[in-house]
Amino acid sequence: MTPPRPTRVIAQLPATVPFVGPEVIERRTGKPFLARLGANESGFGPSPKVIAAIAEMAGDVWTYGDSENFLLREALSHHLGVGIDAITVGEGIDGLLGLTCRLFLEPGDRVVTSLGAYPTFNYHVAAQGADLVKVPYADDREDLDALVAATRLAPTRVVYLANPDNPMGTWWDAQAVETFVKAVPEETLIILDEAYGETAPEGTLPPATLMQPNLVRFRTFSKAYGLAGMRVAYAFGMPEIVSLFDRIRNHFGVNKLAQHAALVALADRDHVDNIVEKIAAARHELVATAREAGLVALPSATNFVAIDCGSSQRADAMLAAMLDKGIFVRKPMVPVLDRCIRISVGRSEAMGLAIAALSEAARAVKPL
Amino acid sequence: MTPPRPTRVIAQLPATVPFVGPEVIERRTGKPFLARLGANESGFGPSPKVIAAIAEMAGDVWTYGDSENFLLREALSHHLGVGIDAITVGEGIDGLLGLTCRLFLEPGDRVVTSLGAYPTFNYHVAAQGADLVKVPYADDREDLDALVAATRLAPTRVVYLANPDNPMGTWWDAQAVETFVKAVPEETLIILDEAYGETAPEGTLPPATLMQPNLVRFRTFSKAYGLAGMRVAYAFGMPEIVSLFDRIRNHFGVNKLAQHAALVALADRDHVDNIVEKIAAARHELVATAREAGLVALPSATNFVAIDCGSSQRADAMLAAMLDKGIFVRKPMVPVLDRCIRISVGRSEAMGLAIAALSEAARAVKPL
Repeated sequence: MTPPRPTRVIAQLPATVPFVGPEVIERRTGKPFLARLGANESGFGPSPKVIAAIAEMAGDVWTYGDSENFLLREALSHHLGVGIDAITVGEGIDGLLGLTCRLFLEPGDRVVTSLGAYPTFNYHVAAQGADLVKVPYADDREDLDALVAATRLAPTRVVYLANPDNPMGTWWDAQAVETFVKAVPEETLIILDEAYGETAPEGTLPPATLMQPNLVRFRTFSKAYGLAGMRVAYAFGMPEIVSLFDRIRNHFGVNKLAQHAALVALADRDHVDNIVEKIAAARHELVATAREAGLVALPSATNFVAIDCGSSQRADAMLAAMLDKGIFVRKPMVPVLDRCIRISVGRSEAMGLAIAALSEAARAVKPL
Repeated sequence: MTPPRPTRVIAQLPATVPFVGPEVIERRTGKPFLARLGANESGFGPSPKVIAAIAEMAGDVWTYGDSENFLLREALSHHLGVGIDAITVGEGIDGLLGLTCRLFLEPGDRVVTSLGAYPTFNYHVAAQGADLVKVPYADDREDLDALVAATRLAPTRVVYLANPDNPMGTWWDAQAVETFVKAVPEETLIILDEAYGETAPEGTLPPATLMQPNLVRFRTFSKAYGLAGMRVAYAFGMPEIVSLFDRIRNHFGVNKLAQHAALVALADRDHVDNIVEKIAAARHELVATAREAGLVALPSATNFVAIDCGSSQRADAMLAAMLDKGIFVRKPMVPVLDRCIRISVGRSEAMGLAIAALSEAARAVKPL
C-alpha cells in the first residue's frame, strides 16, 4: 500500500528543524545542562504577579480561551496607542510568522531576508514553496539599503527585518527603520520583527502609530516578559492587513493561561523595567569578561550578546567546549556571522558558569 | 498606496469564523452566561493533580517547552501501546487538522466529509483552496458507506470521519470503523477524529494498533481530560505519515504548561474514569428531562446530547430562549441536523439551569 502523497511543496521539504532544542541535546548526550543561555529566554523569569495569576487560574483551564483574545488586545491597544482592530494575537511570533507566510506566499514567490537572519522565518517560507533571496549583513547589521535594493530588483512579495537583530544583537534607530519602511515597494509586505524591542535603547522602535498598508510589526511576551513557554505574541499594523489573519488563524488556538499571563505581565511595568535593567547589567558583565578573554563583544540591544571569536573554526571549538561544560549556548549558522558565539543573559548563577566557561574556552582554543 | 495582495486562495476566503465563542456573545449582549454548555468543554474540570502541577510549574514558564514534546509522547506511547515515532503532539486537534490540510491539500483537491460535520475542519480545507464534497448523514450518523462511495467516485485526497460524531453524538462500533478504513482508496488520507473517544462505550475505538499508510487518528486533552484551554492534542499513525508533521509544524509551539498538564492528566486514570462516569450520569439526566418535555434525545457517546426539537424553526426558537436565559448552548448548522439543540453536560449547578431552561423553552415554543 502506497501512502498518500503530500503536496508537491511538502514533498520537497527537508526534515530539518530550524533549531534543535536544549532538551533534545540533553537527551542525546544524557547530560543535563547547568546553564540555559542559548535560546534568548529570560532567565530572570516572569513577574511574580504573573506566576500567581497562572496558579490562581489553573482550575479554569477546562474552558477554551477567548477566541478574540479581547482583553489582551484591549490592553495592548492602550499600551501601544493604536486601535484594537490593529492588533492580532497568536501563538508566539513563530506562529504568527507562519500565518503571515500562508497569507502572502505562493510557490515561486520571491522573499527577501538577510543571510543568517531568523531561520524559523525561512522555515515558514520554505513550507510555502517560496524562494528566499538572502542579503548579506554589513558590519554585523542587517543591511537596510541592500535589503531595499533587493526588493526593487524584482517583484518581491515579502521582506523580513528584525530590529533589534537576532542573532547579532545589533540594531538601527527608528529613523533608519522608517526610511527603510518608506523605501520598500508598496506591493512588498514588510515583516518588522521587534521581538527584542523592549530591551532596545530608546529611539530604536518607531512609534507604534507608524503604519502603512504593507507593514506588519511583531512583538512577543517570550523575551523581556519572560513567558517563552506560554506561547503568546502579537502582530500589529493597519486593520486591512491585520484582519486577514482572521481568515486562517486557529481562532481558539491561544492558550487561556497564556492570554491571562500576558495581560498581567503587560500591566506590571515595574517588573519589565527592572528586568530590562538587569539584562543591561548582565550584558555589561558579559562584555567585560569577553574583553578580558581577548574577545570582542558586539554591541547589543537584546537579551543576548554575540561574541566574536575571530574565526568560525575557533567559535565552533569554543562552542563545543562550552557545551561540554554544560553551558547551553548557540552560534550563528552562516559566514561571516558564524565567527561568533551567541550567549543569552540571565541570572547571576548561570552567568557565572557561562563566564567561567567562556574564559576557559578562550584560553583553551587559541586564535588561528 | 495599495496593500500587498494575499494569495489567490486567501483573497477568496470569507471572513467568517467556524464558531463564535461564548465570550464574544457575552460582549455583544453585555450579559454573562450563567451556564457554559455550548462548546463540549468538561465542566467537571481537570484532575486536582493537574491543577496542582500547573501551579507548581508556573515559575518555569520563562523557558520554551520541549520542541519534541518527548515526555508526553513517551507517556502516550505506553498508554496506546504504539511507538513514540507514531505520535505527534500539537496545539489541539484544531491545530493538527490545520497542519494535516497543509500537508496534503492543494487548490482544487477533492475532500470528502459529512454535511454538518466539524466546521473547523472545513475551515482549514477552505484555507488550502480545496473542494469539499459533503455527504449527508443517515439517521443522524455519519454515513460510512456513502463516505466510502464518495471517495471512490473521483480521486479524493482526504476524507474526514469523527467517531464518536460531533455535533450529533452518535457513533459506530470499532468493527464498522475498521471496515470503513479498509474500504477507502489507498491514495486517500483518512482523518479519524476521536476527540470524544474517552467517553465512548467500550468497543467504539479500534485498537490503537490499527494503522495503515493512509490513516491518521486524532485525540485530545480538551474533552474528558478537561484541558480545553491548554491546547494540547495528538495525532497518531504510521511513522511515515506522522513524521511529515515535523516538516511544517511550529516546533516550539506547544505551551510548556500544556505539555506537563497533559502528562499529569494522562497518568491520573482514576480521575478520567470518574469523569467519564459523571458524564454518563449527567447525560442520562438530560435525556430524562428531554423525554419529560416531550423531546427526543439522541443516543450519545460523547460529553454532549443532541436533543431533537422536531423542526429547525422550533430548535432555533428554543435555542434563542435558552440563550436568553443565560444558558450557552449551540445547535447543528445544516438540515436535517439543525432540528436539534446540542447541550454539553457538566456540573450539577449548570445542568440544573440548563434543564430548567430546556423544559421551559419546550413549553413556551410549541411544536409546528
